[in-house]
Amino acid sequence: MADGSDKSWILMVTAQSPTNIAVIKYWGKRDETLILPINDSISVTLDPDHLCTTTTVAVSPKFEKDQMWLNGKEISLAGGRFQSCLREIRSRGTDYEDQEKGISIKKQDWEKLNVHIASFNNFPTAAGLASSAAGFACLVYSVAKLMNVKEDQGQLSAIARQGSGSACRSLYGGFVKWAMGNDPNGSDSIAIQLATEAHWDELVIIIAVVSSRQKETSSTSGMRESVETSPLLLHRAKEVVPKRIVQMEEAIKNRDFPSFAKLACVDSNQFHACCLDTSPPIFYMNDTSHKIISCVEKWNRTEGTPQVAYTFDAGPNAVLIAKNRQVATLLLQKLLFYFPPASETDLSSYLIGDKSILKEAGIETMKDVEALPPPPEVKDNIPSKNAGDVSYFICTRLGRGPVVLSDEKALLHPETGLPK
Amino acid sequence: MADGSDKSWILMVTAQSPTNIAVIKYWGKRDETLILPINDSISVTLDPDHLCTTTTVAVSPKFEKDQMWLNGKEISLAGGRFQSCLREIRSRGTDYEDQEKGISIKKQDWEKLNVHIASFNNFPTAAGLASSAAGFACLVYSVAKLMNVKEDQGQLSAIARQGSGSACRSLYGGFVKWAMGNDPNGSDSIAIQLATEAHWDELVIIIAVVSSRQKETSSTSGMRESVETSPLLLHRAKEVVPKRIVQMEEAIKNRDFPSFAKLACVDSNQFHACCLDTSPPIFYMNDTSHKIISCVEKWNRTEGTPQVAYTFDAGPNAVLIAKNRQVATLLLQKLLFYFPPASETDLSSYLIGDKSILKEAGIETMKDVEALPPPPEVKDNIPSKNAGDVSYFICTRLGRGPVVLSDEKALLHPETGLPK
Repeated sequence: MADGSDKSWILMVTAQSPTNIAVIKYWGKRDETLILPINDSISVTLDPDHLCTTTTVAVSPKFEKDQMWLNGKEISLAGGRFQSCLREIRSRGTDYEDQEKGISIKKQDWEKLNVHIASFNNFPTAAGLASSAAGFACLVYSVAKLMNVKEDQGQLSAIARQGSGSACRSLYGGFVKWAMGNDPNGSDSIAIQLATEAHWDELVIIIAVVSSRQKETSSTSGMRESVETSPLLLHRAKEVVPKRIVQMEEAIKNRDFPSFAKLACVDSNQFHACCLDTSPPIFYMNDTSHKIISCVEKWNRTEGTPQVAYTFDAGPNAVLIAKNRQVATLLLQKLLFYFPPASETDLSSYLIGDKSILKEAGIETMKDVEALPPPPEVKDNIPSKNAGDVSYFICTRLGRGPVVLSDEKALLHPETGLPK
Repeated sequence: MADGSDKSWILMVTAQSPTNIAVIKYWGKRDETLILPINDSISVTLDPDHLCTTTTVAVSPKFEKDQMWLNGKEISLAGGRFQSCLREIRSRGTDYEDQEKGISIKKQDWEKLNVHIASFNNFPTAAGLASSAAGFACLVYSVAKLMNVKEDQGQLSAIARQGSGSACRSLYGGFVKWAMGNDPNGSDSIAIQLATEAHWDELVIIIAVVSSRQKETSSTSGMRESVETSPLLLHRAKEVVPKRIVQMEEAIKNRDFPSFAKLACVDSNQFHACCLDTSPPIFYMNDTSHKIISCVEKWNRTEGTPQVAYTFDAGPNAVLIAKNRQVATLLLQKLLFYFPPASETDLSSYLIGDKSILKEAGIETMKDVEALPPPPEVKDNIPSKNAGDVSYFICTRLGRGPVVLSDEKALLHPETGLPK
C-alpha cells in the first residue's frame, strides 16, 4: 500500500474493447455459474472505431467502496458476474510501484483497495449489439492492466467469460474461437485467436438495427430455457456444431467466402430454430429480420455464389457480412431500396459508422434513395418498401482487440475519481 | 358396360370430406412418389359443417375425357398425384348393376370410362386451411363409392395419401393417426382412427386466418428442402416424434388436456424450427402468429395449467384448441381484444363457422368489441391492438369423416354431367 502518509493518490487505466458477432453460435451452458458452454463458437471482432466500450478503472485508498457508472449513470456491482470478475482479477494482481508518485502496492493489497469503474458504449446499449461482451471484456482487460496482472490474454478471456460468455471472444481482434474446454473448473474454456483482422481485410460489415416493440427474452434466461426444454439443442451441440467448427476454421484460413457465408447463415438459422424449439418458444427474429434474410438469400441464389452472409444474435438486428467493398455498396443499395428511412429520419443519421460507403454507392441525398431501382433479382415481383422497419444501419469492418488508451481519454476525473 | 343401345346414362356420387389439422406434425417424405413420411403423425378432424370439400364424381359412356372443376373452374388432371389416385381407384372397381336404369358395368370397364369431377370448398382455398387434404380425401372417397370399391377405409386412406399425404387422415372423423409404415410400396402407410369425435366433444376450435402478403413456400417443396438440408429434421423424426406419438395417444385416450396441449404446442414449434433449420430457411409463421402464441402462452402460464393449445401448419394461420366451451368464450374475448376487425370489416363476417359463440362471449356489436377489457394476465403491460392483422376467425369443433350426400347436393348436372 502507499506509505500511509498520503492517501490522496489515484491510480487509473483506460482501455477500449470491441464487440464481436458469432458466426458459429454459442447457445447453452453446461455450468451456469462458471459460464461454460455446451459447444465451441467462432466470432468476428468488429472495428472498435464504430462499436466499442471504453472503460476507465481506478483505485485509491480514499475510495470508500467499489462503484461503477455505465454511460454516466451509476449501476450496481452487486451482481454475481461483476463480483466474479473483480474477485478473479484482484487475486491475480502483482506488486506495483510508482516511485515518482509515491505509490507502492503489494500483491495482497489489491483486494483491500476499492475500485471506481466508468464505462461508455459508443453505440446504443439497448440495441442488442453485444454491449455486455464488449463491456465485460473491457472491465477485465482494464482492471488487469491496472493491477499489473501478468496472465496472458487467453487466461484473461477465461475471467471475462465469467462476466458474460461471449465477452471472452472480445479479448482478441480478427477471428476468434471460444473453445468450450473440458475442465470442470473452466480453466480451458478460453478464447483463441484464429486469425487477425488483417488476414481477411476485404470483408465489409453492415448491421441493420431493426425496430422492435416486443420485449425480448434475455439471452441468459433464453439459453437456460433452451437447455432445459429443447430436444433439438443438445443434438445441435453434440452432433452438428463440432463439424461446423472444423469447416469454419478451414473457411477462415483459406478466405473461402462461399463456405464462410453458407456456414454462418445456416448456423444463425439453427440457433434461432433451437430458440423456437424451446418451451415456451423464443422468437428473436421478426418479420423485418425475415425480409432481410429473403433479400440476401434471393441475391445469393441469383449470383450462383454467396455475396453476403447474414447472422442474427438474440434480437432482430441483422449483421450482414459482404465479401468485399463492391458487394457492400450493392448490398447497401438493395437495403436502402427495401428499407428506406422513415420520413422524419435524416440520411446522415440513418447510416452511421463508416459513412464513406454512402458516397461509393452513389447516395448523397434522400432523392438518391428514392431513385434506387428495384434489385434486378426481384424484377418480376417487386416487393413493397418498408420505411421505418429499420432504425438505422451501421457500416463497419473487422477490428482489433482491446487496447490501453492515453489518460486524456479517461472517463474518471484524475483528482476525484468520479465520472467526468 | 351398358348394353350398348343407350349411351346417355350418367352414374354419379356426391360426397363430403373434412379437413384435418395435425397435432403431431408430418414433415418430410422418405418416398416422394408414393408419399411415405419419415414419421407418424396425429391429427384432429374438423367439423365439415364449417370446413369441408364436397365432390361429385360421375362416369358416363358419353364423357370424352377425364375432366375436373374446382370451385366452378376447370383445372388440369394431368398432375401425377391426380393420376395416381384415379389409377389406383379404377383398378379396384367392382361389378356394378342398376337394372332399373339399364346400367351394367363390369370390373374391367371402369378403366375405360371417363370421369367428371366437380369439387367445392366451403372455405377459402388459398387461406392455407388444408384444402388439398379435404380435396384428395373427397376425390378418393367419392370415386371409390362410385366404382363400387370394396376396400376398407384404411386401404382408401393409402390411396388418398398418394394425392396429398395429410389427405389420408381426412378419411376418418375424430382423432386420427397416420402410421408411417415399413413397406416400401406403402401398403401399411395408412390412417387409423384413434377415437371418434364423440370421445372428446368438449373441445372447441378457433382458427385465426392471418393476413399475409408474403408468398409462401409450398409444403411439398418445403418438406423436400428440409429433408435435404436440415440437420435437425432427421433427429426429430427418429428420436423425438416416436415418443410424442405414444404420449399423444395416451393423452387422447385419457382426455388429458394439459398433456394434449403441451404436446401439440411443442410439436408445432419443433416443426417450424425444422423449417427455420432448412437452407434457405422457410418462415411460415409471421409476427401475428408469434403474437398469438405469446397471448396463449401467457394465459396458460397465468392459469397454471393449459387452457388452450395452438398449432400452425405451413402458413401463418393459428389453430387454437380450447379445452371447453367456457374457455373458448374467454379465448375469443382475448383474441378480439388483441386483434379487432379492421375498421371496414363487419363483425358478422369476422367470425364465421359456429357464430353462436359470439353471443356466449357477450359480443353482439362492434361496441362490445371496443369495450373488451385487457386480459387480466397482461394488466401491467397492455399490448397494442392489432386491427387488421387477422382476416377473420372460424369457430368450429371436431367432426366426422367422409359421408355420401344425396343427389340433390350434386355439383354436376344429372343430364349433362357438367357443373351446375
